[in-house]
Amino acid sequence: MNRCGIFDSGIGGLSVAKEILKSRLFDEIIYFGDTARVPYGNKNESTIIRYSLEALEFLKNFDIDFLVVACNSASSVAIEDLRREASFPVVGVIEAGVKALDGEKKDSNILLVGTRRTIASNKYQTLLHEKGFKNIISIPTPLFVPLVEEGITEGKIVDEVFNLYFGNINKDKIDIIILGCTHYPFLEKSFKKHFKNAKLIHSGQAIVSMLKNDFSITEKENSSIKLFASDNPEELRKKAEIWLG
Amino acid sequence: MNRCGIFDSGIGGLSVAKEILKSRLFDEIIYFGDTARVPYGNKNESTIIRYSLEALEFLKNFDIDFLVVACNSASSVAIEDLRREASFPVVGVIEAGVKALDGEKKDSNILLVGTRRTIASNKYQTLLHEKGFKNIISIPTPLFVPLVEEGITEGKIVDEVFNLYFGNINKDKIDIIILGCTHYPFLEKSFKKHFKNAKLIHSGQAIVSMLKNDFSITEKENSSIKLFASDNPEELRKKAEIWLG
Repeated sequence: MNRCGIFDSGIGGLSVAKEILKSRLFDEIIYFGDTARVPYGNKNESTIIRYSLEALEFLKNFDIDFLVVACNSASSVAIEDLRREASFPVVGVIEAGVKALDGEKKDSNILLVGTRRTIASNKYQTLLHEKGFKNIISIPTPLFVPLVEEGITEGKIVDEVFNLYFGNINKDKIDIIILGCTHYPFLEKSFKKHFKNAKLIHSGQAIVSMLKNDFSITEKENSSIKLFASDNPEELRKKAEIWLG
Repeated sequence: MNRCGIFDSGIGGLSVAKEILKSRLFDEIIYFGDTARVPYGNKNESTIIRYSLEALEFLKNFDIDFLVVACNSASSVAIEDLRREASFPVVGVIEAGVKALDGEKKDSNILLVGTRRTIASNKYQTLLHEKGFKNIISIPTPLFVPLVEEGITEGKIVDEVFNLYFGNINKDKIDIIILGCTHYPFLEKSFKKHFKNAKLIHSGQAIVSMLKNDFSITEKENSSIKLFASDNPEELRKKAEIWLG
């Protein structure tokens, strides 16, 4: 039995779980959402590290072989601490998202969107610069999270929020958009509408590529998922029904 | 030295603190925002009660004479538990908001807005019914919180969100709007624009009236405020500078 633990601060990581589940790279996925303490985005680094290590302890109970950190805030500050405490591989959405740009032209116009904390952490930008990418615009887009949680992913309100955040950039010139928050893939249609020429980098798909290419994990016959939440598991279950189908 | 403790799940309660500070009913206000665990709105009752009692323990250290619960979620589930553990009066925004309707016509058309949890708790509605009010429309308006936190309180996005939430009601017929969330007073201008004939009930002003009328608290010469947060106090300080002036 091959098991993958997925840890997120809340329900957004379901977009990552969805892709891993679809890829059938594990017999079983154990998803833990720290819904009692979501969101991590506005918390201190030391607090996020402590919460992440607690999540790891919880997931260890399930004898997991792999840990995916589906939370951008935790990925930006806690990955090293998690690796020190885990006897199995730990991968985060940020490194996977950057890795997904392998093969892209170094002068591509890249738009990075994420929560205030993710953008301010500078983690994505540093890794992109190290890889030789130069043209990076990063814009914090915090309102996307509550919109997605309310199920509002297209239409007038979303269009107005896009105008607010992207009114000052030349949208047609953007080649690649890194969706630096696990909630954002649910806005895919709106991103495609507003950015006609851009390729979207989706954390879940990036993680799956990384698992296949870097860890040579192969497809299983079946794959199932178990969901746990530190508070309000009912809400997680409901969202999972809608989002995972 | 007369001291008032104010407890909120986060920063929204600053709208209540602002009114109490302005009223100078206490020499000192001690504000505690549980920013490490905000929002309470989607958490279980037992969790909210536990967090509220922890906040009370913290505020007791400051030798307070009065506790104002500026969080609607805590007001709806934890007031009785707090009263049992406190040796001083405890008042909540919900009872104060309902009390503010004393003297209004019983057939007034009342619109109640709040977070999903506040509306679902049915606390406001039950108290209003007990007072004889019959025409109550209650609508959960969860997007208002992130909008206010992002400083977006009027303009196209807000107008579109108003259309989303209130597109199906006859806005001109609303006589009274209960702003059932401490973030909402910051949207006052937009409410006035969309609801031409409505009187707005603001938790902070309602609390001040209650303190004056029911507890006969009188004006002091000076009043100051101290702010505490369970995480990210810098953010609370910044918002206080903007919101309290």
